[in-house]
Amino acid sequence: MTATNIPDDHPRARSLRVREAMKDAVEAGLVHATGLIAHGRGEAFDYLLGETSPPEAEAAGAEAVRLLRAARRPVLSPNGNVVALDAAGCVALAEAIPGLRLEVNLFHRTPERIDRLVRAVEAAGAPAGSVLGREPDARIPGLASDRALCCAAGIGDADVVLVPLEDGDRCEALVAMGKTVITIDLNPLSRTARTAHVTIVDELTRALASLRTAPPGTGRFDNTTNLAAVRRRMATHLLESA
Amino acid sequence: MTATNIPDDHPRARSLRVREAMKDAVEAGLVHATGLIAHGRGEAFDYLLGETSPPEAEAAGAEAVRLLRAARRPVLSPNGNVVALDAAGCVALAEAIPGLRLEVNLFHRTPERIDRLVRAVEAAGAPAGSVLGREPDARIPGLASDRALCCAAGIGDADVVLVPLEDGDRCEALVAMGKTVITIDLNPLSRTARTAHVTIVDELTRALASLRTAPPGTGRFDNTTNLAAVRRRMATHLLESA
Repeated sequence: MTATNIPDDHPRARSLRVREAMKDAVEAGLVHATGLIAHGRGEAFDYLLGETSPPEAEAAGAEAVRLLRAARRPVLSPNGNVVALDAAGCVALAEAIPGLRLEVNLFHRTPERIDRLVRAVEAAGAPAGSVLGREPDARIPGLASDRALCCAAGIGDADVVLVPLEDGDRCEALVAMGKTVITIDLNPLSRTARTAHVTIVDELTRALASLRTAPPGTGRFDNTTNLAAVRRRMATHLLESA
Repeated sequence: MTATNIPDDHPRARSLRVREAMKDAVEAGLVHATGLIAHGRGEAFDYLLGETSPPEAEAAGAEAVRLLRAARRPVLSPNGNVVALDAAGCVALAEAIPGLRLEVNLFHRTPERIDRLVRAVEAAGAPAGSVLGREPDARIPGLASDRALCCAAGIGDADVVLVPLEDGDRCEALVAMGKTVITIDLNPLSRTARTAHVTIVDELTRALASLRTAPPGTGRFDNTTNLAAVRRRMATHLLESA
């Protein structure tokens, strides 16, 4: 089955198309093979949301918008999976939030893959030369080797960072740097989900679309409480499905 | 990170090694890229089990052993993910259950991949020529194209089939053929989990190891009740993790 011959009326047509697109992104060198495994983990938790955005994601999204709009230097840092899933959504969010810079980051960094991803984000509509990541000139303290690399004009000097589908170590290191960290992660139990200041438990494409238009929150938001509510929602789904 | 440089004391060393092995299996042509996504879905549900075998898996395993031992023609049919994860476990189970035949099956079938998988199972210890799958001479009614292909000496004439990590359509088609279907599937909500007669909700390697030594059950087993108990267990894990 390829993306082009999945029937529109297949009950899982969207999910199957995304899977094929992710496989193609591996073949195109945008996504690391283990990124497919991470995608699968997300799929499982999205089943437990009934594949719809929960109210808790809306609340976290409102707080994220408030923080991003109030930031001095906000950054959205997509990795390979994020670019493959929704490069256009990243570009559209950068257009919607004043001053939001885009910086590609990679867990499995190679200069070639960074270059391909920067070009993919530009192809999705980012102004040429606007996407950071190719020439890292700063480091995130506490991370080994290449995973520490970042750009001073992006993550390095950012006060608020939106890092969707982020690795736990890197999320912790960003928090330890004193940055306000927002993530999008379908797994409410992940280290990233628990470490970030604001965790939007939602599928990436739905979350980015919602952030584009969400009004800023009031600042009354507690991430731990919000995550607990999402976990209760998923638990209820598990119990009621049969 | 490669399988060889994952530190032994990393809290997720086993999971990281399995991920790398699955990636290598894709590169070796044993596993389809979308098999990595399926593996990730399994990982997510295994988190919800606390990455240990639940008592419900033991109960389902005992019923599986009872059925396999009482079968006239029992078959274990591994696909690419199953071979990549635990070819040796399949061979060991075939040695433990009298008459259990092995037949490789694939969702994304190519003759080359079937051949590689048969050779991988033989390399894991199956007697040369004992593994079916290369020369299909029967069909599973109700399935389109290559997914229907099977061997008369294996699945075709089997009365009890153990099909771990099985596709929902294929599981339904095997049940419709009148076969007693046992599966191993970490997702208690999947169509396969709900359709099979006996669903062992457990990680593949743990489940195969347990089946090798489990005493046969008494026949008092209800799959729906057992699945509901696993779902409650996962829900509790979601609620109690914080």
